[in-house]
Amino acid sequence: MSHQNLGSGSHHHHQTSSSTRCWRNNTALFGAIMLSIMRAAFASNAGHHVLGDASTNVLSSIPRRKRLTIDSISENLKTMEYAVRGKIAIEADRITQELHNQRKGISTSGVKFPFDHIVYTNIGNPHAVGQKAITWPRQVMALLQLPDALGIDHPNASQMFPEDAIERARSMKQALEGYGIGAYTHSKGVRQFRMDVARFIERRDGAEPGSIDIENIFLTAGASEAIVMLMTALIKDSSCGIMTPIPQYPLYSATLDLLGGHKVGYYLNEESNWGLNMEELERSLADAEAKGINVVGLVLINPGNPTGQVLSSDEVKDVVMFCARHNIVLLSDEVYQENVYREGDAFFSCRRAADEMGLIKEDAIQLCSFHSVSKGVHGECGQRGGYVELVGIDEDVNEILYKLAASKLCSNAPGQAMVSLMCNGPNPGDVSYESHVAEKRAVFEGLKERAMVMSKGLDSIPGFSCQPATGAMYCFPSVQLPHGVVEASKELGFSPDTLYALDLLQSTGICVVPASGFGQKAGRYGFRTTFLSPESRTVVEKIRDHYEQFCSKY
Amino acid sequence: MSHQNLGSGSHHHHQTSSSTRCWRNNTALFGAIMLSIMRAAFASNAGHHVLGDASTNVLSSIPRRKRLTIDSISENLKTMEYAVRGKIAIEADRITQELHNQRKGISTSGVKFPFDHIVYTNIGNPHAVGQKAITWPRQVMALLQLPDALGIDHPNASQMFPEDAIERARSMKQALEGYGIGAYTHSKGVRQFRMDVARFIERRDGAEPGSIDIENIFLTAGASEAIVMLMTALIKDSSCGIMTPIPQYPLYSATLDLLGGHKVGYYLNEESNWGLNMEELERSLADAEAKGINVVGLVLINPGNPTGQVLSSDEVKDVVMFCARHNIVLLSDEVYQENVYREGDAFFSCRRAADEMGLIKEDAIQLCSFHSVSKGVHGECGQRGGYVELVGIDEDVNEILYKLAASKLCSNAPGQAMVSLMCNGPNPGDVSYESHVAEKRAVFEGLKERAMVMSKGLDSIPGFSCQPATGAMYCFPSVQLPHGVVEASKELGFSPDTLYALDLLQSTGICVVPASGFGQKAGRYGFRTTFLSPESRTVVEKIRDHYEQFCSKY
Repeated sequence: MSHQNLGSGSHHHHQTSSSTRCWRNNTALFGAIMLSIMRAAFASNAGHHVLGDASTNVLSSIPRRKRLTIDSISENLKTMEYAVRGKIAIEADRITQELHNQRKGISTSGVKFPFDHIVYTNIGNPHAVGQKAITWPRQVMALLQLPDALGIDHPNASQMFPEDAIERARSMKQALEGYGIGAYTHSKGVRQFRMDVARFIERRDGAEPGSIDIENIFLTAGASEAIVMLMTALIKDSSCGIMTPIPQYPLYSATLDLLGGHKVGYYLNEESNWGLNMEELERSLADAEAKGINVVGLVLINPGNPTGQVLSSDEVKDVVMFCARHNIVLLSDEVYQENVYREGDAFFSCRRAADEMGLIKEDAIQLCSFHSVSKGVHGECGQRGGYVELVGIDEDVNEILYKLAASKLCSNAPGQAMVSLMCNGPNPGDVSYESHVAEKRAVFEGLKERAMVMSKGLDSIPGFSCQPATGAMYCFPSVQLPHGVVEASKELGFSPDTLYALDLLQSTGICVVPASGFGQKAGRYGFRTTFLSPESRTVVEKIRDHYEQFCSKY
Repeated sequence: MSHQNLGSGSHHHHQTSSSTRCWRNNTALFGAIMLSIMRAAFASNAGHHVLGDASTNVLSSIPRRKRLTIDSISENLKTMEYAVRGKIAIEADRITQELHNQRKGISTSGVKFPFDHIVYTNIGNPHAVGQKAITWPRQVMALLQLPDALGIDHPNASQMFPEDAIERARSMKQALEGYGIGAYTHSKGVRQFRMDVARFIERRDGAEPGSIDIENIFLTAGASEAIVMLMTALIKDSSCGIMTPIPQYPLYSATLDLLGGHKVGYYLNEESNWGLNMEELERSLADAEAKGINVVGLVLINPGNPTGQVLSSDEVKDVVMFCARHNIVLLSDEVYQENVYREGDAFFSCRRAADEMGLIKEDAIQLCSFHSVSKGVHGECGQRGGYVELVGIDEDVNEILYKLAASKLCSNAPGQAMVSLMCNGPNPGDVSYESHVAEKRAVFEGLKERAMVMSKGLDSIPGFSCQPATGAMYCFPSVQLPHGVVEASKELGFSPDTLYALDLLQSTGICVVPASGFGQKAGRYGFRTTFLSPESRTVVEKIRDHYEQFCSKY
């Protein structure tokens, strides 16, 4: 039998590469004949895993090496890190599963934890820590899922849905060209929904009504998808780099890793509530250029993540002007624009800054502004709705981005609908208007209170320092770690604050993200925690108690 | 005033690069000082676009070149093509808009079209051509959007929703850990939903219940996202290539372009209903390897897109064995697995082939199988739900993919829910069971009939040849084009079948995709059309009449 030609005398699972290579040199015809023989060997094999002699021989001729292994993967993809769902979060998931098994009586580990659930403060995921969805948009979303006769036209619809939700769903179904949310939309998103975004931005920024062209708006699966798209367009090759704050939201560093671009860090100033320092921006750019890096973009996160600060209009104007002067594309992450808590503070968009300085009219700025339904007061993370508005981006570049979006067909239509509803809520006078505003207000006030509780509470712990969280959803305290921790973590091969966070998790069930995952000055240690959990007060006390024990342990 | 240092004497909008370079050499401190001065210039400028002398001078110092231009974009991204939403589709959109404007009386073009709407047969988007959503999954989806008190627990819920939809929504809400669809899910997707997928695959393939590990299933935004993820992991560098059928679905070529990998084509055999030819697979691989290409994967699309063929179990086994022998990762696009129309044909998965040949047990195959809610009889394209099942992929590679998924947080939760509902419909005996099955059957029978109407109709046109569409949603006829067309298209700079498709669109309103967008043998011309439209009969007649006129024109 010709299987002997195939080196099937060898029964080692890991064949040598030379025998594989021998295979490769066979002619096409020979391969085809062999396949027929092999297939014949299996023809009588109706059951599973029941192999006769012939097929065993065939199987033994097949290389057991694997093509796709950890070693076959690009360095860029391997290098890429994403701390928010990293080591600590994975351990937290493992413990959750273990607690679940213990409750069901199917655990065999025998491990006992001094808590009965994990408090996930590692990620800005409001609904997962008890925040309720705002009602009205959800009623419209439900009606969008229902066929007309069973939804907007159902005789009993008004018993379950308010009139203004029914009417809005009706007009959105028209905007969906009558196809409903089961059809692919325009690859940039439904035109009418993009119009809702345009009018929202114009109102927010006091811009001329109708001045924003919907062709410059792309609806995307959360802001993340838009960010990756723009970075893909910006990073031409490995000489390119993008300025990102330190600390930063790790999607930026992860995407730069993946695309093979340089991370050009600029430090935020912790002492001035994570403020911007224009000298530091100039330093960062000059240093990068001295190294031959082609700095193509700058990421600004305002309100800050993980740092929670809110920039003044002057600070925003400074950054915008910096980008204009240096001809750098400004990637403006404004997903926390509704999350501004301190009296007197107000969100001021990069777009508005550029507009007021005449840079838009003069076509002297390139700006991409990102927003999302995941944050604010809706917190609709799971719906994956977001947008990017492009300012000063040439039409031919826009077309490249459109092509990229088209290759993925479109972002999910329900997420697009949620963006529309966030940008365009019920109107004053509508039956749901008052309750809608009240619900949003209640969520906002809750966030505002917990921001204070958490940041003041953490700041009051001896050894901790925490800037006031005036925006976003996070506190980013620094934590003094005993020398023993630094030594011990070295041996374990991870950062000192990872060791701290792991100990905190295993002792208290509180899941935070080590600050090292976001970047920080050398020698600083700390973590990021959200202040979303209604347990925030308890969380602070547990962190306080644990820290004392932790320090005494080392 | 120090703005004179900035070359503001020049009022040209396009500054020379030397003046820009001069900027770059300024020290960080100087830059910071300048920013203060610039900001001061704008401080009194409350309105928009109203610039005083000082600010005009500042603006004139800003470079008007742009950082992000068509020239600054990577060749890979520029090269990337995606025909399904390419030239013809864009022209169709333009005409749709023009027709809309004409109806509203706001068109000034004066162009008259001999049709009143575009028939979009360019894309497998069933709901956009009149297919209705299957009711029951939509009822569950609606309830998932509603807060409990307004949905599953609402006193009037049973007047609008069947009991089994309410109960399913209740259990899915539990599977969402009580957070609802507004929370980020596990980055691989909700565990229970992945379990639904696993049980679905086991039933479909006659595999042992419980044999599929949900850790090997990722829920994604349609199959597209999963395909891009896997290709990202496979293409380590520009030496890598992936075998793709010719013709193929252009997402594969587009993604290979973007990642900088080689497209290693293998021809399908049109004469045998686009059948596979194992000699051709061997030829393709040998040729690529002779060129030094590291062939890491092979894409199999079954049922075929754009070609509509259904492979026999023997053919599937041949391809699986080919990949096993050559240690190539098999990317198995099985999104049309429900769309098999011919008596006697049946979908046979690559997974099942591998299982029956003992390759899974022996860990001798690497296989990634993709599925989607967009096709089949649901046609829920806009929901963007899909999955990939990994077979024989190492745990450390799985973790890299998990990290990649985590960087985008999660796919949209409603889309995940739709995957669960597709894999796990109402149970026999449930109140909706009979009507659900009947609705699915009706959609299927409609597709089956139109597949016949369209493929036979096109094949009967003199000059056309069309293989029977036994699966999927497409016909892919070849069309003889007069020599004059080939000449004319050369001058216009696009393919002859693009010229044909453009003429067809402008003459009849029928939007097809030129076959050149999918790949075909040199000298062959044709197009892809879906057979989704209820107007399929008329479409065939219009194509027939147009072809006659078109040929006589050239």
